[in-house]
Formats: sequence, structure tokens, C-alpha cells
Amino acid sequence: MKPSIPQGTRDFEAGTIRKRKFILDTIKNIFELYGFEPLETPSFENLETLTGKYGEEGDKLVFKILNNGLDNPAKREEIQKSFNEILAGKNKKNITERALRYDLTIPFARYVAMNSGKLTMPFKRYQMQPVWRADRPQKGRYREFYQCDADVAGSSSLITDVEFAEIYVSVFRKLNIDVDIKINSRKILSALSEICGGENMTAITIAIDKLDKIGPGKVEEELKANGLSADQILIIKNYLQISGTNREKLNSVKTLLGNNGNGKKGIEELEFILDYMQENNKANEIVTVDFTLARGLNYYTGVIYEVKAKNVEMGSIGGGGRYDDLTGLFGLPNIPGTGISFGVDRIYDVMEELKIFPADINKSTTALFLNLGEKESRFVFHQMQKLRNAGISCEFFYEPAKLDKQFKYATKKNIQFAIIIGAKEIDEKTFKVKNLTTGEQQTIPLVKLPSHFNEIMVTF
Amino acid sequence: MKPSIPQGTRDFEAGTIRKRKFILDTIKNIFELYGFEPLETPSFENLETLTGKYGEEGDKLVFKILNNGLDNPAKREEIQKSFNEILAGKNKKNITERALRYDLTIPFARYVAMNSGKLTMPFKRYQMQPVWRADRPQKGRYREFYQCDADVAGSSSLITDVEFAEIYVSVFRKLNIDVDIKINSRKILSALSEICGGENMTAITIAIDKLDKIGPGKVEEELKANGLSADQILIIKNYLQISGTNREKLNSVKTLLGNNGNGKKGIEELEFILDYMQENNKANEIVTVDFTLARGLNYYTGVIYEVKAKNVEMGSIGGGGRYDDLTGLFGLPNIPGTGISFGVDRIYDVMEELKIFPADINKSTTALFLNLGEKESRFVFHQMQKLRNAGISCEFFYEPAKLDKQFKYATKKNIQFAIIIGAKEIDEKTFKVKNLTTGEQQTIPLVKLPSHFNEIMVTF
Repeated sequence: MKPSIPQGTRDFEAGTIRKRKFILDTIKNIFELYGFEPLETPSFENLETLTGKYGEEGDKLVFKILNNGLDNPAKREEIQKSFNEILAGKNKKNITERALRYDLTIPFARYVAMNSGKLTMPFKRYQMQPVWRADRPQKGRYREFYQCDADVAGSSSLITDVEFAEIYVSVFRKLNIDVDIKINSRKILSALSEICGGENMTAITIAIDKLDKIGPGKVEEELKANGLSADQILIIKNYLQISGTNREKLNSVKTLLGNNGNGKKGIEELEFILDYMQENNKANEIVTVDFTLARGLNYYTGVIYEVKAKNVEMGSIGGGGRYDDLTGLFGLPNIPGTGISFGVDRIYDVMEELKIFPADINKSTTALFLNLGEKESRFVFHQMQKLRNAGISCEFFYEPAKLDKQFKYATKKNIQFAIIIGAKEIDEKTFKVKNLTTGEQQTIPLVKLPSHFNEIMVTF
Repeated sequence: MKPSIPQGTRDFEAGTIRKRKFILDTIKNIFELYGFEPLETPSFENLETLTGKYGEEGDKLVFKILNNGLDNPAKREEIQKSFNEILAGKNKKNITERALRYDLTIPFARYVAMNSGKLTMPFKRYQMQPVWRADRPQKGRYREFYQCDADVAGSSSLITDVEFAEIYVSVFRKLNIDVDIKINSRKILSALSEICGGENMTAITIAIDKLDKIGPGKVEEELKANGLSADQILIIKNYLQISGTNREKLNSVKTLLGNNGNGKKGIEELEFILDYMQENNKANEIVTVDFTLARGLNYYTGVIYEVKAKNVEMGSIGGGGRYDDLTGLFGLPNIPGTGISFGVDRIYDVMEELKIFPADINKSTTALFLNLGEKESRFVFHQMQKLRNAGISCEFFYEPAKLDKQFKYATKKNIQFAIIIGAKEIDEKTFKVKNLTTGEQQTIPLVKLPSHFNEIMVTF
């Protein structure tokens, strides 16, 4: 049997893990700077916690866990009974009652509803964990991937939304990725649909959401197919063509939406956010009002965000927004929520493509102690332990192999120094150190072993 | 519906996550000091990768993932067909072909076998990821828990085993846990069984493994039930009663095992390890030879380890050993392996019980900016952003609530300072800062906002 891993999953090796950690740590540090605290939820939830939360398509993509023993032919009666019930459309629980985490928002909502009595509100948490989706794997789409979310539960203050925009700005600055942070409000989309008769919010949102992919012509066709009149389509066309600076766009949309209540509220939201950001680090210059932003079929009700990297062909690398009712599905009404998400896998791909990972991320072990024979090994090992006790990472080449092979090992593992202590050096109480990048070699008194490295590691 | 989580799983909150991170980071840092590099494998593997690797009992505890769509009553024909095959004992794959990670060793072996051509050998990796077992949940036993392993593949040098003993010593010293690191060799157990007729290795190992739980009397009974003679049982009794210092124990076992080849090799292994450790930090005083150590039904063939915390009632918090054939099951023979594991959940419980987590682990946000009204908010927000830009974590209380409520929020979230900037302070270009532990309050010029905190954070 040739070993393999399931489609859509990946093994992560040291170099990749270090780069991913760089991204995750950068995001985490900014989240904590803004007072968010970590939360981790179980990898699987009760099936009923997830069912019905992601739409019909989403439900199909949830990975379900087989109840224990049901793959055991010895339990034939039990199995037959369970499956008869499934076939009769009755009790799914007999086969599966647990499912793998599909996103981080529903477990967060479940957690808030479950612990509402004891949580300090507003509750600010961040969460960085893998999620699983039984999607068809393709380039950039995996069945196991990380999500990375921050949300606030229990505040309807727009200042929370300002902070999420600022977090996006800070994170992508730290990561050195040039981005466009698009912002809109679902209230403005509601206003648009109200002006167009008020019955087509979903159809309009879905059509606008596809604008990037299918172009304005096809959007128009789709709206027509959904029964919108020529007048209504003209309004939407005008809406989608709004352009200019943030200020100019807001003025145009004001004219278009007139006195519509939702429109006024949505415009106020965007103005509030842009105004609050104004003085800070030119953050507001990176945030662009984009009325074509719709964020698909999601549960958003207020401000929505989407982040795209400039100079790279890649889908959005972040998104989020405000939703009025976070925990209603779990029996706790009237808790507003707002939050954002980072697409870690895509951010990784963007940084690889732009070659902007800092060079020193992939530092591995500092020194390899060469193995010059069994007789010297014990002495050399003890010298190495001194270095480790001083906090310098090192390895001993376990077998007394040819030096050539030992050097090759060091190079392959990106180790920076080779240390040679043979019979001669033991006699003379010295060690040789070779810089494997420059080829430079020094002979140094043995007593200086830890101090030599402590010095060079500072300047390295 | 009252929301809940599956039996045997846990939500981890900020305080717990920080303490767990302290343990994981300590172990990780020592692993890296010894030249181990990280590896992460997928949460689910192909079912055939895991099947048959954990014994009959283990196989039952592997969580299997239901193939997609099989819980959908609309697919009745497909479902019925699949289950008929299962019932006929034929093709399990029709129902499940993926299963959740059960431990870290088999995925590691699978990874080494799958990538043998490109890996730099010996391959040293560490891995810290959750595993899942469908075990009956009870105190200290979960269905989702972390494992934390380091292994070397491709070296039969005993120096690797020395390093693992040293790693145990270093990690538990850093964590401030007083431990007993027990060491034995499977070769010595083989020798014992050879002396007892050579046919009862498994029975003898299993019986000895239970010594702690059932006591010497019951072990004797079990050996008798397994057909061992009175003479043979006497040898084992003498073996189990060996005591004294490490040196004394090794001398006694030499006498008992005489010229047995495996016995000699096993004793040599232990002597080599203890001798290598001798000079380093008295590490060898923490490592105790314990001939009653057996490590159950595992695949070990050489040195074995087990770690117990002193002064606490708790099972082993670490274990490991050498196994001759890591990847044979995956078609790549002759790759020796050796490694150790840390029981993170139990280490956590031990540190909680002994109250030895460092006090400063649970530091949360540094400062809360109080909300004194909408008019001041925008100004205050911009002051706060200056502090965040200087790397000081802070929060803004989003709503203009009563001050009492705002202070309560800060206390509940363990925030250290409250910062007050009202109309008066804006006028006078000052801010008030209140230390929430001491109650002390200062008024400070506004220009000093970041510098004041940079100074106190250093001395804090």
C-alpha cells in the first residue's frame, strides 16, 4: 500500500509552519492590542448545532462523524435498524450525531448562548482554528483550512466597526501587503431594494454579489429574469456606476436613495466610520466605500467589509460585518454581533507570490556538532549541553559518518554553524566553528563556547 | 433548544488557553533547542492508514467520518446498497473512508514513508496537535485532547535516547514540576521472558504493566493463570523486587539475567544513557531505573520511559521509547524510530493542583479607556490609538454607561488601568490614570500618554 493523505488535506512542513505562524502571530498580536481574548471550541459539535445554519448547500458540505460501531459488520441488527430509520427519513441521529466545525461563527454563537449568564459583555473574542468542508478540492480550496476571526457580541456601538476597519489596516501594514479595504452597509442595499419595489432584496443582493465574476451585462439579465422592470434595473445600474472619492460616492448615493430611512442610516454608518478613522495613520485612505460590495447570502445587517490584495490575482483575503441577531438561533435573542475574518491560506499565497515573507523566518537550528568518533562523542555531547543550557539550539550528528555527509546534513537543514571538536581540540581545549554560509572557520578556546555564541547571536 | 457541546469535549476560555500555551511553548522551545522541527498532519487520514494500527480495542475508538450524502434520505438506493455491503462484511469504504487522527505516531510514520525520498535523515520532528478517541469520557479523559510528541526517524544511536531523557529533565525543570523519570529497556523484559521459557513475553509484559494498579499478589495470580510455573514466577518475583540506587539495581539485574544476550544489551543501553547524562545538571539523579516499567502493549523494542509527577496523585504525564520498525507498516522497512510524548492535559492538572503556574500568565488588556459621552468619544478614541500604536493593548468602553459599570467591566476582565479623559481633561490637555489594583490615581499631561505606559510596562 502506497501511503497517501485524503484529497484536499495537507501535511505542513517546518518552513511552511513558520511562515503560517508569522501570519497567525501578527493577526493575534493585533487582536490582543485591541483587547480581544482567545477562545477555542471543540473540533466537533453536536450535529443539531450546525444543521440548518449554512443554507442547503452548506449543510451538504458539513463533515458528519459516524456513530461508533456502525462500521462493524458484527452489529448487523443495530445497523440495519438505524438505516431503516434513515431510509424512512426518520431518525438521522442513529447514524451520526456529531459534525466537524464548519466555520467559527456558529460555534461562537453557540458558546455565547450557552454561557450568557457568566460572560462579561460586550464579549470580545478571537479564534484561530481549522474548519472542515466537504467541498470539491481545487487550487486554493481545501477540505481542512484555518479560519481566523474576531467578533464582538453584545454591542451595537459603531465604534466596534471602526476598530475592525483599523485592525484590518494594522494587520496588513504589519504583513506588508498592499490592500484595498472595501466597505459598504447592508442598509444601503436594503434601501436600494426598497426603492426597487421592496420585494427583491435577496435577488438583488445575489446579482450584485456576482458583478465581479459575471460583469454588468449578466447582472442585468439576472435581474430581468427575476422580474425587475426596466426602470428598476436602471436604478440599480446607476447605483452600480457610482464612482469617485469616498466623499463623492457618499454624495451620489444620497441623491440616488433620497429620503429612504434605511439609506440614511447606512450612509450615516459609513460616514461615522470614515470620520472616526480620519486622523489615524491615514487609515481612512486605505478604506474604500464600494457600493457593489454585497457579501453574498450572509446574515449581515449593517456595515460589511471585504479585503483584497493589490497587485495579485486572488479572491478576497478578509471579510466580515455586523449582524443584528447573533444568538437568536440558540434561544438568546437581542444580542448584536459584529466581526471580521482573515483568510490565512490566501494571505499565505499572496505573501509567497509577492515574496514578502521576512528572510529570517526560516531560521532553524543554530549549530551542528560534528561526530568525529565514539571516543570523542561523550565529551562533545557535554560541550553541546552547555550551549543548549545557554539557550542556543544545536544538534549532534548521531552517527560517526563521513564529514562530507555531516556537512551536507547541516546545509540541507539550513543550520548556520558547524562545530568541530576532535581529539586535537580536546587536547588543546579549543573548538573549531565554521560559518556554513561564508565558509569562514575560527578556532576558539573551549571556555568561550557559550559566550562566543551569545555574542554572535545578538549581532547575527 | 438548549445549546450544548458533545460529551468529552471542552470549550477553552482565555485563562485556560494562556496556561496551556505556557506549557506548549515551554515544550516547544526545548524541542527546538534540541534541533527538532515542527510538523503538522491533517486532522483526518484515509481510514486504511489508521485501521489495524492500534489493536482491536483501539480500532473501535477511532472516530470515522461518514461519507458525504449518506445521511440524506433522498439517496435511499445508494444508502441501502452501501449498507447491504457493510452488512455482508464487504466494503466498509462505501460508508466511511476517512477517520480522525487517533495519535501522532502513525501519521508521523505515514509521513516519513510517504516522503522518504526527500527527507533529510535522521528526521527529527515535533508535533503538537489534537487527537480524538471515542473513549468513555471520565475525569481527566476526553474525546478531544492534545498530544505533544518528538521523534527521531532513521537513527539507532543511543545518543538520541539520551537526548530524550535530557529533554524530559529540561522541560519539567522549566515547568517547575518535581518528577520521577523512570527508564527501562524492553530488551531486559525480553531477557526475563526468555529465562522464563521464552513463550510468554506478552503475558509477562501485560502482567508487569498492571503491577501499580493490581499489586504483586494479583500479578502472580495472573502469571499462574497464564501457565507459568512456580519457578518461573519466583524469577519474576525476584525481578520485581530489585531495589536500591540505579547502580545497585543494574548490578542485581545483571546477576539475575546472567549471560542472556538481550539482557546484556538492555543493561548496556541503560548504562550508556545514565553515563552520558552523568555530568549534566545532575540530570541523571532525576532518571530512575525501574525494571517494573513495561509500557503496556506498545511497539517498543529498546529503551522505554515514563514520567510521573511527585507529590500529586496522577497517572503518567509523559512516556515513550525506541521502536525498531517505524514505517514497515507503510512499506518502508528498516527505519528505526525513537520518541517521547507529553501529556499536556495531565500536566495542566498537575500544575493547577500544585498552584505553580506563573502569576503573570493571565495578563489581559493593559488599559480601559472609559466612555464619558458621545461628545468626547472621538477624541478619546484617537488618544487610545496612539497607545495601541506604541504596542500597549487597550480597550474602549463602547457605550456611555454609568462609570460604575465600566469599572466593573475592567475588574472582571482583569484590566490593569482605567484611563479617564473627560471634557475637563480635554480642556487641560491631561489624562487621569487609575491603577485598578492599588486604587491609586494620577493626572498626567496628555503628551505623555504613550511614554508613561512604555515606562511602567517595563517595570510592571
